[in-house]
Amino acid sequence: MTAERRAAEFDAADPLAGYRERFTLPEGVIYLDGNSLGALPKTTPEVLRCVVKKEWGEGLIRSWNSAGWFEAAGRVGAKIAPLVGAAPQEVIACDSTSVNLFKLIAAALQMCPGRKVILSESGNFPTDLYMIAGLEAQGLATRRLAERERLIDALDSDVALLLLTHVHYKTGAMHDMAALTRAAHEAGALVLWDLSHSTGAVPVDLNGASVDFAVGCGYKYLCGGPGAPAFAFVAERHHPSLSQPLTGWFGHAAPFAFSDDYAPAPGIEQLLCGTSPVLGLAALEVGVDLIAEIGVGRLHQKSQALSEFFLQSLDAQGAVLECVSPPDSGARGSQLSFRHPEAYAICQALIARGVIGDFRDPDVLRLGFAPAYLSFADIAAAAGHLAAVLASGEWQRPAFSQRTTVT
Amino acid sequence: MTAERRAAEFDAADPLAGYRERFTLPEGVIYLDGNSLGALPKTTPEVLRCVVKKEWGEGLIRSWNSAGWFEAAGRVGAKIAPLVGAAPQEVIACDSTSVNLFKLIAAALQMCPGRKVILSESGNFPTDLYMIAGLEAQGLATRRLAERERLIDALDSDVALLLLTHVHYKTGAMHDMAALTRAAHEAGALVLWDLSHSTGAVPVDLNGASVDFAVGCGYKYLCGGPGAPAFAFVAERHHPSLSQPLTGWFGHAAPFAFSDDYAPAPGIEQLLCGTSPVLGLAALEVGVDLIAEIGVGRLHQKSQALSEFFLQSLDAQGAVLECVSPPDSGARGSQLSFRHPEAYAICQALIARGVIGDFRDPDVLRLGFAPAYLSFADIAAAAGHLAAVLASGEWQRPAFSQRTTVT
Repeated sequence: MTAERRAAEFDAADPLAGYRERFTLPEGVIYLDGNSLGALPKTTPEVLRCVVKKEWGEGLIRSWNSAGWFEAAGRVGAKIAPLVGAAPQEVIACDSTSVNLFKLIAAALQMCPGRKVILSESGNFPTDLYMIAGLEAQGLATRRLAERERLIDALDSDVALLLLTHVHYKTGAMHDMAALTRAAHEAGALVLWDLSHSTGAVPVDLNGASVDFAVGCGYKYLCGGPGAPAFAFVAERHHPSLSQPLTGWFGHAAPFAFSDDYAPAPGIEQLLCGTSPVLGLAALEVGVDLIAEIGVGRLHQKSQALSEFFLQSLDAQGAVLECVSPPDSGARGSQLSFRHPEAYAICQALIARGVIGDFRDPDVLRLGFAPAYLSFADIAAAAGHLAAVLASGEWQRPAFSQRTTVT
Repeated sequence: MTAERRAAEFDAADPLAGYRERFTLPEGVIYLDGNSLGALPKTTPEVLRCVVKKEWGEGLIRSWNSAGWFEAAGRVGAKIAPLVGAAPQEVIACDSTSVNLFKLIAAALQMCPGRKVILSESGNFPTDLYMIAGLEAQGLATRRLAERERLIDALDSDVALLLLTHVHYKTGAMHDMAALTRAAHEAGALVLWDLSHSTGAVPVDLNGASVDFAVGCGYKYLCGGPGAPAFAFVAERHHPSLSQPLTGWFGHAAPFAFSDDYAPAPGIEQLLCGTSPVLGLAALEVGVDLIAEIGVGRLHQKSQALSEFFLQSLDAQGAVLECVSPPDSGARGSQLSFRHPEAYAICQALIARGVIGDFRDPDVLRLGFAPAYLSFADIAAAAGHLAAVLASGEWQRPAFSQRTTVT
C-alpha cells in the first residue's frame, strides 16, 4: 500500500481529524514548525477584535473590572494547570519564559540558604542557561552544567536547584521527570522544569512527580501567538515561603492601596510583576481553550502515531538520514530531528517545496508534528518531499546554502 | 461668555482638533483617564487583524524574518526615542515598566561598585519602590526614601542611583529633570527616570539633561493598549559597560548560535530578555506613530490649555475643591488632582454621569487631560458635571461610596 493510501486510512480513523478545521493553515504549506510557533486558531482574530474594539475601545479603563482583565493572568493559568498536572491555583500566565525562569531560580536560591549551585544540562535551551548566568553575574548563583547522563552524579549538597527542559528543543528527547525530581529531592535540591516543548503535546504530571517549580511557553503547542505570555507553576506547599525578586505592583497583596512597602499577594499571584499584557493573554486563552478541548492524552497519542508514520514513510522510500531523536516515540516530544552536515540547505530546499521545518545550528533538521492540526496526509507528503530532496540532491543548489536568520 | 461658548471658540482654533477623529471614543463618555489607559487609535484593530491573520496565520514562523518581527522591539524603541529626547539606538520596547526598572536598577548597581543605596521619593509610584525592594531582598541594594524636597540632601557617597518618576502619578507634579540629574551626578550617582506619566504628554530631553537610564509605559499617553510593552532607555555612553541580570536569549549577541554561554548584544538590544511580544508591539507601534505625528510640543501646549480651562470653568461655577497639583501648568503633567475626604464617592458620581476619571487612595480624585483626543467642549462639560456633583451632594448616595476595585 502506498504511503498516501495508508495516510488516507489513518486520517479516516483519526478522532482528532476534525480539529484541523479549527485552525488557519496557509494553502500549499505543510507546517512542521508548530513546536516553534503554533498555528492560528480560527476564532482568535474575532476574540482579539472584540477585546480591542469593545473592551479597550468602548470599555476603556472600566474593562479592568468589567471585562475581567484583572483576573486574566490567573484565569489563563488555571486553564493551563490541568494540561501539566497542576492545581488551578498553582499556575499563572505572565511575562516571558525567560523572566519566569529568573523569578523561580531566584526563589529557589532564597529557599535553600547555603546552597548556590544551579545544575542544568549542557546544551539545554539557551535561555534557561543564560538566566542562570544572569544570577551568577549578580554573585547569587553558581552555574553547573553536566551532560545528560551525568546529571544525577552532579547532584550534591551544594545544589540548590536542578533546572531542566523536559523535552529537549533540539533532539526532542524527554527526561524522566519523576525520577530526576526524586533524585534532586534526595540530594536536598529543588527542581524547576521548563515545559516549553511539552505543554499541550505530551502528558505532564507536575504534582504526581512532586515538582517544585515549572515554567512554559505560550506560543508553541498552546497556539497563543508570536511572543505570547508564558506561564509559571509553583507547588502550593511552597506558596507560604515563596519569595521572588521581581516584586512589581501587580504581585502586591493590595496593588491599589499604593503603599510604599511591598507585601506579596498570598498565592501564585505574587509571581506577577508589571501590568498584565491583556491582548497577549486574550490570544493565549483561545489557544489554551482549544488545546484543552482536544485533550493532551489524545494529542500525545496522535503525535506518536504521526512521527512513527513519518519514519516508516521515509524508510519505505529508501531515504537514509541519521535521526537524533529517541527511537521510542514514548521517550520523545512531538518532533523528530535529523543530523546532516548540510541540514541548513536541506531545510531550505524543503521550504521551497512548501514543507516548513526548521534548522538548529550546526547540523540539525528539526521537524515538529503538532498533532492538533496535522493530518497523516501531511506526513506522507512531507516524508515524500524529504526523500525527494535527498535523492535529487536539489539541496545542493547555491540558493539553499546561503544563510539568513531563521528561528 | 459661558464655558460652552468659550470652549467652542477654543475648539475652533485648536490645531489638534482634527486628531480626535483618529481615536475611538465611546458615545456619552468624557474620558479623563487617558493617563491610566490611553484611548484606542482607529487604525489599531485593522493593523492587529493583519498581524494576526496574515503575518501569524499565513506567514507563520517565516514572519519573524519576512514581517520584521525580529526588529519590532528596536523599531518601536527608535520611534519612541525622539519623544523623550533620545537617539534611536538608545531606546527599546520590551517587557513591562516594572521588569525594565529591575534591569536598570541592577545595571546601575553593577556600574557603581561600593555603593548600594537606591534613592527614591516617598510616595513614588509603588512599582518603582517595589522593584528596589526586590533587589534589597536579594541583598544587593539598600532602599532609601526621602520626601520630595529633601531628595538632594539625601544624595551622598553611598547612593548608586537616584530613581524618580518625572511626573508624579498622584499629583501630576513634575520634577526638574536637569537639576536633579546634575545633583545626582555631582554626588557620583547615576539617574533613572520613570517617564510613565510624561511620554507623549510633556517634553522630555533625556540627552539634554545627560540622563543615564529611563523607563516608560506604553499604555498611557502612547495609546499602546492595555498592558502594552514598556520601553527602556540607556544613554549610549553606557552601552559598552552595561550589564543587566535578565540575560535572556533575545538579548544575546547571536541568539541563533544556541551557545551555552551568554554574550550580550552590543547595543540597547542587550536589554531584551525573552521572545518579543509581537501582538503587543504591533498595537504599541500604532499609538506611537500617531502620537509622534501629532508631536509632543503641540500636545503639551494643548494639555496646558485644557487643564487651565478646566480650572477656570470650575471656578466660574463657584466650585471649591482643593487642587493638589502644582498651580503652574508648566510644572505639572497632563492631569489635575483634587483632594477631598469623599473623593471615591465623587469619582463614582462623575462616572455615573459619564465622566470617567479615577480615584487614588486615600482621598484623591485624579482627572487626566490626554490632549490628543480631548476637546475643550469635553473640558467645559466635565467641569460642569463636577461642579454639579459637588453642589447637589449627589455623591452622598450610598451606591457611590461602596468600594469596588478600580485602577
